[in-house]
Amino acid sequence: MFHHSLVLSAIFLLPNKKGYKMNKTLLSFTVIAALSIGANAMEKCAQGKYGGDTKKEMKTAMTKSYYKLNDKGELIRPTDYRTWVYIGTPVTPNDLNGGHAAFPEMHNVYIDPESYKVYKETGKFREGTIIVKELVSVGATQAVSGKGYFEGEFLGLEASVKSKKDFPKEPGNWAIFTFSDMKTGILKDSAPVMPSDKCVSCHQASASDDFVFTQYYPVLRAAKGFGKGNPEDTAKRAIQKMKK
Amino acid sequence: MFHHSLVLSAIFLLPNKKGYKMNKTLLSFTVIAALSIGANAMEKCAQGKYGGDTKKEMKTAMTKSYYKLNDKGELIRPTDYRTWVYIGTPVTPNDLNGGHAAFPEMHNVYIDPESYKVYKETGKFREGTIIVKELVSVGATQAVSGKGYFEGEFLGLEASVKSKKDFPKEPGNWAIFTFSDMKTGILKDSAPVMPSDKCVSCHQASASDDFVFTQYYPVLRAAKGFGKGNPEDTAKRAIQKMKK
Repeated sequence: MFHHSLVLSAIFLLPNKKGYKMNKTLLSFTVIAALSIGANAMEKCAQGKYGGDTKKEMKTAMTKSYYKLNDKGELIRPTDYRTWVYIGTPVTPNDLNGGHAAFPEMHNVYIDPESYKVYKETGKFREGTIIVKELVSVGATQAVSGKGYFEGEFLGLEASVKSKKDFPKEPGNWAIFTFSDMKTGILKDSAPVMPSDKCVSCHQASASDDFVFTQYYPVLRAAKGFGKGNPEDTAKRAIQKMKK
Repeated sequence: MFHHSLVLSAIFLLPNKKGYKMNKTLLSFTVIAALSIGANAMEKCAQGKYGGDTKKEMKTAMTKSYYKLNDKGELIRPTDYRTWVYIGTPVTPNDLNGGHAAFPEMHNVYIDPESYKVYKETGKFREGTIIVKELVSVGATQAVSGKGYFEGEFLGLEASVKSKKDFPKEPGNWAIFTFSDMKTGILKDSAPVMPSDKCVSCHQASASDDFVFTQYYPVLRAAKGFGKGNPEDTAKRAIQKMKK
């Protein structure tokens, strides 16, 4: 529509032998149309309706929120998170924990891109940070590359949200939610805040940075307060320690 | 600049008591300015110079390439990949492999977002697919959550690229590169194609889908041929099997 209107307007402006001759009303209409098209384009861009690279996307989305509560105050199951910023995968499998691990799955953990950007620039988890933990079964334990742990099937989904506005009474303003239903294998569409003694208390006691286990997330440690660039673009890495 | 010009143009159009009165030359100028602003905005949007959500970004970036070779035909070290699409983390640690694992690190693996989108829609790895493997040391092996493997420090970086144009002689047109230097801990800025018998041959023999070990990457299995939406938005998950 945008494109068509521009072409139409351009035709009105084609010079003829007497120069730019144009009915005044038509001309006025064209100006208004062109301006409204421009304004519309600008608005759509501001709303993120057009494509953009990640950096610019982040710049224009400074206050974009990636979580939403329903009218019962439950977190609506996050979507599209497999394109958020991945931060790490801890694994504490059953076979290393007497057959009954507290967390037998592999956990793929993501942070929303805007909060990653803010963490990178300020070193803080912003108001509105959402971290998603996707539960994946341990699949193979033997491959051509050796013995170990390989991701199997998706099982569940959990999330934590930091918001003083929405969770003023939660420790650190972090609320944790689970959408998992291990019996049916069907995720819930929304989930209430988990009692803080079930999850948050352990995060409070043992996590390195504001209830987040950054000690196990090098992506976050590398990003914390890094600034505007991308930590992965620097060549410096750790030197491997030979343990055995 | 865009915004200022629009405001300026709008002032010219403010109705006065005699209606829309405006010098013809000025009016023509305004039309042209408004149109050029609109066209400029459209062009910038098409080029991805404005913010956008991921779906639209992908739509406009249909042919965007995420890898670049230098004049020696070496792959320039990829950048910004921690915001690409994460696909999985296999771990085959030393302590499960007699102290000498072939791949002792945890491997965080990412695919470029455009190739993820094409894989999601067509089920194929497109010409120009780049997959990056970030090598992370095994850090802690004991945490409050139990015994297991937790990511430590970044050690190295490898990549594979599928391109018939650039690698016509490689099996499956996949070329593999390593930027790692485990002695210095400093990644190389560019890397030559690895001899195909060092990596590609094993991928050819054992990987499930076109040299990629999708059997260990549920993100890719869920995405393969899924279509336009996001596989993670569906509620269906697997049901946990109790092994022990």
